Amino acid sequence: MSVLRNYVSGQWQEPTEDGTPLHDAVTAEEITRVSSAGVDWAAVLDHGRRVGGPALRELTFHQRAALLKSLASYLREHRGELYELSARTGATKGDAKFDVDGGIGVLFTYSSKGRRELPNDTVHVDGGPEPLGKGGTFLGQHIATPLRGVAVQINAFNFPVWGPLEKLAPAFLAGVPSLIKSASQTAYLTHRLVELIVESGILPEGSVQLVCGSAGDLLDHLTEQDQLSFTGSASTAQRLRTHPNVVARSVRFNAEADSLNCSILGPDATPGTAEFDLFVGQLVTEMTVKAGQKCTAIRRAFVPAPLMDDVIDAATERLSKIKVGNPSNPNVGMGALASLEQREEVRRCLKALLEAGRLVHGDTRERLSVVDADAVNGAFVPPFLLRCDDPEQPQPHEVEAFGPVSTIMPYGDGRSAQAQHAAELAQRGQGSLVGSVVTADADFAREVVLGSASRHGRMLVLNRHNAGESTGHGSPLPQLVHGGPGRAGGGEELGGVRGMLQHMQRTAVQGDPQTLTAITGEWMPGSSRTITDVHPFRKHLEDLRLGDTVVAGPRTVTLDDVEHFAEFTGDTFYAHTDEQAAAANPFFEGRVAHGYLVVSLAAGLFVSPEPGPVLANYGLENLRFVTPTYPGDEITVTLTAKRITPRQDADHGEVRWDADVTNQDGDSVAKYDVLTLVAKKATSDA
Amino acid sequence: MSVLRNYVSGQWQEPTEDGTPLHDAVTAEEITRVSSAGVDWAAVLDHGRRVGGPALRELTFHQRAALLKSLASYLREHRGELYELSARTGATKGDAKFDVDGGIGVLFTYSSKGRRELPNDTVHVDGGPEPLGKGGTFLGQHIATPLRGVAVQINAFNFPVWGPLEKLAPAFLAGVPSLIKSASQTAYLTHRLVELIVESGILPEGSVQLVCGSAGDLLDHLTEQDQLSFTGSASTAQRLRTHPNVVARSVRFNAEADSLNCSILGPDATPGTAEFDLFVGQLVTEMTVKAGQKCTAIRRAFVPAPLMDDVIDAATERLSKIKVGNPSNPNVGMGALASLEQREEVRRCLKALLEAGRLVHGDTRERLSVVDADAVNGAFVPPFLLRCDDPEQPQPHEVEAFGPVSTIMPYGDGRSAQAQHAAELAQRGQGSLVGSVVTADADFAREVVLGSASRHGRMLVLNRHNAGESTGHGSPLPQLVHGGPGRAGGGEELGGVRGMLQHMQRTAVQGDPQTLTAITGEWMPGSSRTITDVHPFRKHLEDLRLGDTVVAGPRTVTLDDVEHFAEFTGDTFYAHTDEQAAAANPFFEGRVAHGYLVVSLAAGLFVSPEPGPVLANYGLENLRFVTPTYPGDEITVTLTAKRITPRQDADHGEVRWDADVTNQDGDSVAKYDVLTLVAKKATSDA
Repeated sequence: MSVLRNYVSGQWQEPTEDGTPLHDAVTAEEITRVSSAGVDWAAVLDHGRRVGGPALRELTFHQRAALLKSLASYLREHRGELYELSARTGATKGDAKFDVDGGIGVLFTYSSKGRRELPNDTVHVDGGPEPLGKGGTFLGQHIATPLRGVAVQINAFNFPVWGPLEKLAPAFLAGVPSLIKSASQTAYLTHRLVELIVESGILPEGSVQLVCGSAGDLLDHLTEQDQLSFTGSASTAQRLRTHPNVVARSVRFNAEADSLNCSILGPDATPGTAEFDLFVGQLVTEMTVKAGQKCTAIRRAFVPAPLMDDVIDAATERLSKIKVGNPSNPNVGMGALASLEQREEVRRCLKALLEAGRLVHGDTRERLSVVDADAVNGAFVPPFLLRCDDPEQPQPHEVEAFGPVSTIMPYGDGRSAQAQHAAELAQRGQGSLVGSVVTADADFAREVVLGSASRHGRMLVLNRHNAGESTGHGSPLPQLVHGGPGRAGGGEELGGVRGMLQHMQRTAVQGDPQTLTAITGEWMPGSSRTITDVHPFRKHLEDLRLGDTVVAGPRTVTLDDVEHFAEFTGDTFYAHTDEQAAAANPFFEGRVAHGYLVVSLAAGLFVSPEPGPVLANYGLENLRFVTPTYPGDEITVTLTAKRITPRQDADHGEVRWDADVTNQDGDSVAKYDVLTLVAKKATSDA
Repeated sequence: MSVLRNYVSGQWQEPTEDGTPLHDAVTAEEITRVSSAGVDWAAVLDHGRRVGGPALRELTFHQRAALLKSLASYLREHRGELYELSARTGATKGDAKFDVDGGIGVLFTYSSKGRRELPNDTVHVDGGPEPLGKGGTFLGQHIATPLRGVAVQINAFNFPVWGPLEKLAPAFLAGVPSLIKSASQTAYLTHRLVELIVESGILPEGSVQLVCGSAGDLLDHLTEQDQLSFTGSASTAQRLRTHPNVVARSVRFNAEADSLNCSILGPDATPGTAEFDLFVGQLVTEMTVKAGQKCTAIRRAFVPAPLMDDVIDAATERLSKIKVGNPSNPNVGMGALASLEQREEVRRCLKALLEAGRLVHGDTRERLSVVDADAVNGAFVPPFLLRCDDPEQPQPHEVEAFGPVSTIMPYGDGRSAQAQHAAELAQRGQGSLVGSVVTADADFAREVVLGSASRHGRMLVLNRHNAGESTGHGSPLPQLVHGGPGRAGGGEELGGVRGMLQHMQRTAVQGDPQTLTAITGEWMPGSSRTITDVHPFRKHLEDLRLGDTVVAGPRTVTLDDVEHFAEFTGDTFYAHTDEQAAAANPFFEGRVAHGYLVVSLAAGLFVSPEPGPVLANYGLENLRFVTPTYPGDEITVTLTAKRITPRQDADHGEVRWDADVTNQDGDSVAKYDVLTLVAKKATSDA
C-alpha cells in the first residue's frame, strides 16, 4: 500500500515506516497510509527559517498578495480533483465546495486586502504617530514586522482544504513561512492540495512545507519567533498550550476549538414569518452540512417557550426529507462522518445528551437506511435532533457531539426579560465561536448581541432583510475574525489584516521624525522636506522621494473671496456672511472663510497645471480645520510626499501628500492628506 | 505589629493571621506585615463581577475617562505621601517620581485617549464595516465589548505605584473591574495608593479591590471572562500560565517579564559626538535609577569594538561620582535594593556573569561605603559594570541580575556588516521589552531596528535631534505598547486603546445595516434614513437621531462653473481646463469638475445658513472621488447623521455625517464624512 510523502526541506520525502492506514469514510476501504517517520523536525523548521522566511521577507505586501492571487487562480483551475477526493472523506459535492471554494476564497480575499489595505512595502505601520514631546522632535510609531520563525499549523480533519489555506494566507501575507501538519484522517486531501501548490511553482521555496502523521518532537524545537496555531479539540489545545517548550519560550499559541454554538429565535419570529422559516432552515443546514462536523455548527437552539412545538414540527419535517448516504450520489443530502471512529464518538456523546433531553428526530435503535452505500462499513449516522425542556440542565451546554446533533431548548421563563434570558443561555456555552439571532426586531438583536458578545467571536443577526445575501451561521469569513473565548480556545484567526498581524511582532519605535521616516517608509511630520528645482508633480513615481515638497503661496483670502464663494457655491452659512452672528459663535471672532474655500485655494496654489505624471486627485483624508481663516489672512500651503505606493500591475501608483496650510503667523489653518494617482515612467506620456 | 488590611468586597478586611513582616530597605526595620489569610477569593471575584463590572459597564468611555482624570488629579494632590513612603523601598526622590508621577501620568493619558479616540458610548467599533454582499443588505462590523469578569493583576515589587496604575487604567477604561494583588516586599506603598483611591470615592465600588500577601487559591476561581496579567519573573509567569484552571478555561493571560534589554552605540557615535555622551549617560542612568530594578533596564551594552575602552572609561568615570546610600539624603544618587533578599539574588547572578566577563566598576570584595545608612542592614550594592570581550559567551545574554548591573560587549567583528551584527546580538536576548540604538545615522538605525524589531516590544533611537525631548530607554509610555516576545513574557500592555482592547472581546457582528446601526451606535451605510420636516442642522444634539437626513439638490455643474472655479481658485489643472488633454488622461473622458468644486457645491446644497445648533464644520474624513463629474452633470447630496458624540464637559458635542454626492444616474461621485460641532440644548442660543 502507498504511503503519503511529506514535503519537507524542499523535497517530497518518503516516510521511513509503513505508517497508519486511512480509510474511505463511505466504504471503509484503505486509501493510503500516513507517517511522519523520518522527518527531522529541527531541519524542517530550520528550512522554513533559513529559506522560506528570508524569501518571503524580501517581498512587499503587494508582491505577496499577487502570489496569493495567482495561487488562488491555479487552485480554482484544479479544484475538480479536490472535489473528487473530498467524496472519500464523506463529503457531498456541496460540502466539498464549502471546503475547497471556501479555502480558495480566503486566498483571494487576503490577496485583495493586501493590495488595498497595505503599503507596497515590507513594514506595516500600525496606527498614527504618537507625539511624545511638545517640540515635535520625538515621536512614537508602532510598526509590525514578520516573526522570524515558522507558522506551525496543526489542522483539524474536517476541513482538509479550507483549514490549511485559512492559516496559510494570513501567514504568507505577513511574510512568515508555513509548516502544515495535516490531520491524519483526511490527510490525503490536504496532501493533494499541497502537491498542487508545489506543482504550481508559484510560492517561494520554503514558504510551505507539509507533514502528514504525528507531530513527533516538533514542539521541542520551537522558539519564541515561531507561532503555533491549532484547530481541533479543547483537550489537545490544552496539551499543546502547556507543552514545556511552548511555555518556556512564550511561543505564540492560537487555538480554535469546537464550541457549543447557539442559535436564538426571536419572539417576533412566529410561524408564518420569514424569520421562523429562516431559523428552521438554518438549523437543518447547520446540522447536515459536512454531516455536522463543523466547529461552528449549531449545537444549541433556543426558541421562545411557546414556539417549541412549532419549531420542532417544522425542523423534523425538513430533516425527514434529507437522504443520508453515498456523498457522490446527487440525491444524497448528507454524507458520512469522516471515519468509523468519529461515528463511535458521536454515539458516545449522544448518550450523554440523552440524559437531559429526548430525541425528536433520528433513532439510535433503528437500522439506518442509507442511499447507495453500506450502513455498517460507512460512517453514517442520521441527523439527531433533541428536545430539552429544561435549559438549566448542564449537558446541552457542555457536551458536544461532533456530528449532525443539535438540542432545542426553550427560553423566556418569566424570571427575566426574554432577551436577557436568551443572552444568559447563550453565555452558558462558556465561550463560543459563533452565535446567531434570527429576528427582525433590532432592539431584541441589540440586547442579545451586546448581552452575550463577550463570549462570542462572531454573531450573526439573520432576518428577511439580509437573508438573500447572508453567508449563514456556519461560515467563517476571511474578512471577519474567527475564534472565540474560553471553550472555543481563546484564539483569533482571519479578520483580514488582523489575522496577518497575529504573525507579526508589534514594536513601538521611538525617535526623531527623520529616523522614523527611514524606518517606516512613511514621511513623518517634522521630518525634513526637500524642495527641488522641479515641482514634485512633474516627477514620475520612480523619481519621487519621500519628503519631496512644494511650498506655494502666499495668497490673501479677501472678504470678496469669501462673499463670492458663498454666493457661487450657495454655502451662505452665517459664519461666512454675517459679521455679528459669526462673532457670537463660540469658535469665531468674526466672519471666517469657508473651510472648503481654504482647501480649494490651497489646491490652486500647489497645482502644476500642464499634463504630467500626476493623473488625478482621488481623495482627501484626515482633514482638520485647525485655526479659523479670517478675511485678510494670507495662506501658504506646504505639500510633501508622504507615502509612495507603486501598483504591481498598473502603470501608475498612489502618492499620499501631507498638506499643511498655514497663515501669515505660521499657524496651521488646515491639515490633511491629499491622495493622488501618479504615473510610472515607462508608460507615461510626459 | 500592624498588618495591612485588604480591600475586598467593599470593605477593609483584617487578615486572620499575623502575616509576613516587611522590612525597610534602608534600615531593615520591620514596617508592617502582610497576609491574605481570611480572604475568600471566590467572593472577591464575585464582588468584582456582580458589583464592579455592572457599575462600570453602565458608564460610557467618556464617563470612565472623566473618572480617571479626577482620580489622577486627586492622587497628584496626595503624591507627597507616596514619595515619602517610597524612600522605605530604597527609592530616591527621583526614583519615587518615576514611579508615582509615572503612574499618575498613565491615568491622565488614558483619560485623554478615552475622550479623544473613543465614542461617548459603551461599544467600541473596531475598524470599518465589511461589505459581505453586493446588494449592501449584509455587512460585518467588528465590535469590542468588556469582558464580564475581573482583571486580576499580579504586580511586581519594583513599581508599587506605577505598576498597579498602568494595569488599572486600561482595564477601567474598558469597563472591567480590577483586583490588585500587590507584591509583598513593597505592599505598604501600593496599600497606601489604594487607600487614597478608596478615600477619594471617585471610582465606583467594586471597580478596584486590593489583596496584599499570597494569592492562595485565587486562580482556581477564574473563568474564561476573567483576565490574568502578571509582571515579574519568567519562572512565575510560566507557573501562572500553566495553572490547570487558567489552561482549562483559556483565561486570557498577559505576562511582562524582565528581559535582557540592550543598548547599541552606532559606529558614527565616536567620542566627542553628542551620541557618544548620550549613550554613556543613558547607560549610567539605566543602571542607577531604581538601583537598576527595572524590567526595562539596559543589561547588555553593545559598542563598536574600537570604542570599547572609550565607552568604559567614560562610563566608569560617571559611575564613580554616584553616591550610594540613604535615598532620603539629597546627595545620594542611588538608593537601596528593595530588600536583603534582592541583594543576595543580585550577588548570585553577578557571580554567574563574572564567568564571562570582568568588573570594570564595582567591587565584590571591598566593603561598600554608603551615605547616611548602614551598609550591612541596608540592601545596598554598588553599580556593577562588566566588560565581556567575547559577545558569543552565553551568560550576558541569559543571566539577568535585577539590580545595577550591566555588561559592555563589542560588535562588528568583520563576519558581517556592523548593523547586521549588532541586530544579531540584540536578538540573542530571545525577546526583550526594549532595545535602544544611539546613532545619528538613519540608515544604521533602520537596519538595526528592522533587523531586530521582531524580538522587541519597543525600540528607541536616541540622538542629538531628539535627546532634548526623549523620554529615555527605560520608560514605558502609556501611548506605546509595553511588553515583548519570548523571554519578555510574550505579552503586551498599554499602547493607548490597544491596552484597553486587551480587556475586551472582539466580536464580528454580521447583519443588515439597520440592525448593525442599532448594535453599534453608528449609522451604517444602507441603514434607513429619516427625512424630517426640520433640517437636521436645526436640531440640537439631544434631539438629533442617527439616520436623520437631508437630501439637497440637484444642482447642475456647468462648464462655466468649472472654468470659473479654475480661474477663481487658481486650480487650472488641465483635466479641468483642456478638453483634449483631459480626454487623453486614462481616468477621464473629457474635462471634469474639480473634486473641491463638487464638495463645495454640496456644502452649498446641504447648508442651513441661519444661526442654529450647528456651530462649525471642523473637518472631513475619508473623502473619495468615486466617479468623475462632467460639465452638465446634476449633483444631489444626501447627508445623514452617522455618529453623535456629546461632550461630557462642554455645551456641545461632535456629529459625524455621512455625505454621499450622487449624479443624475444615481452614481456616487463623492463619498465622505463631514465633522461638525453641534450645540446642546440648555446653553444654546437657538
